[in-house]
Amino acid sequence: MIRIGHAWDTHKLVEGRKLILGGIEVNYPLGLLGHSDADVVLHAVAESLLGSLALGDLGTFYPDNSDKTLNMDSKIILRECYKRVLDLGYHLNNLDLTIYSQNVRIAPIRESIQESIAKILNVDKNIVSIKATTWEKMGFVGEGLALACECVCLVEQ
Amino acid sequence: MIRIGHAWDTHKLVEGRKLILGGIEVNYPLGLLGHSDADVVLHAVAESLLGSLALGDLGTFYPDNSDKTLNMDSKIILRECYKRVLDLGYHLNNLDLTIYSQNVRIAPIRESIQESIAKILNVDKNIVSIKATTWEKMGFVGEGLALACECVCLVEQ
Amino acid sequence: MIRIGHAWDTHKLVEGRKLILGGIEVNYPLGLLGHSDADVVLHAVAESLLGSLALGDLGTFYPDNSDKTLNMDSKIILRECYKRVLDLGYHLNNLDLTIYSQNVRIAPIRESIQESIAKILNVDKNIVSIKATTWEKMGFVGEGLALACECVCLVEQ
Ligand SMILES: [Zn+2]
Ligand SMILES: [Zn+2]
Ligand SMILES: [Zn+2]
Repeated sequence: MIRIGHAWDTHKLVEGRKLILGGIEVNYPLGLLGHSDADVVLHAVAESLLGSLALGDLGTFYPDNSDKTLNMDSKIILRECYKRVLDLGYHLNNLDLTIYSQNVRIAPIRESIQESIAKILNVDKNIVSIKATTWEKMGFVGEGLALACECVCLVEQ
Repeated sequence: MIRIGHAWDTHKLVEGRKLILGGIEVNYPLGLLGHSDADVVLHAVAESLLGSLALGDLGTFYPDNSDKTLNMDSKIILRECYKRVLDLGYHLNNLDLTIYSQNVRIAPIRESIQESIAKILNVDKNIVSIKATTWEKMGFVGEGLALACECVCLVEQ
Repeated sequence: MIRIGHAWDTHKLVEGRKLILGGIEVNYPLGLLGHSDADVVLHAVAESLLGSLALGDLGTFYPDNSDKTLNMDSKIILRECYKRVLDLGYHLNNLDLTIYSQNVRIAPIRESIQESIAKILNVDKNIVSIKATTWEKMGFVGEGLALACECVCLVEQ
């Protein structure tokens, strides 16, 4: 038994917030706006895992109007979502994600993000693919207003 | 034999149209503009099924300049597309879709859409995943001008 | 062993460039801007193949500041990326791609692109799905400023 999951997420870049991507803090003058730590990368991974087993979306489990999720560390969100997958007898086969960013340079931190996600999920980093691309200066990502992230995954029983 | 499919669709929100999402009518002052009923959710599902078997896209089968497809019920489109999959000896393994919406609240109708799609396809709702997210008030979805939908699927022989 | 890959790419439409899509030259007054030939379709296919095996992204192998990649034929990029997949003992199971275009009409060239990609990869065209959709005149694709392309694939050992 194998199943497919997919997710897409975006958060605005604003002043006065730390930039957390894939569970690691990035040195950058702006950070992502959100109720939790707004880690757009871990959100996409977590939601694709939920989606693969039709468990709902991030909003189902982590509503953005609750005290529990205020400034929540998204590493906890991802671990909890993956535990739901494991508890149903499934495990990650592989995931492939793309970070959409115009100005935050992902290439120098690509491998750190890969290792971080592999560590959070306790899987081999060889099944965690991290890629990045710009929007060629167009749209809200291209204008530097936001980052976005898209993730596909296969989970297997 | 297993195959992957993917589709993405968008339609403008306008006055004077019913809002139909996943085959169900949603109580909302605006509706989606299109030649058919413009059900962006069913279009994404149908086209991902066509894509999985390289059968073409929705425009191949349902051109938006024909009388046949004017105001067409997209439930019929989806049923016909899935019949093409079944006729080739494949069936749906699972699908995972995301509705992109800023102002139309999907959470209260998420499970109704899931049940509606499962019923149209005559499959277990456990293999139909429905998720929703906003574009954080950015872009044409974020400005409330349109809804979009993205779907991935696996079909198996 | 099966693995999933995904990629999304965009390039601006500008004057003074040839329009190359899926390895074929399209008769159109504008072309895609980029360091290589900017074939947005082949880039999406190539990067989804790299992603499926966590090999990095296109920027990892084809940096846009090197002489080697200046005006590079993207057919070479795709062949090299697929060779990396084959060298690891994997082959393409199937791919499904969508071209996002407002004004360049894809329907008349859909099958040519399918055959071109199948030929570049030396695979049956039945496992290469080409689809197209507009952005309904919204956003940078809908305003005719750019083309984009999204591809999902399964590779199998
Ligand atoms: Zn998020
Ligand atoms: Zn549509
Ligand atoms: Zn490109």
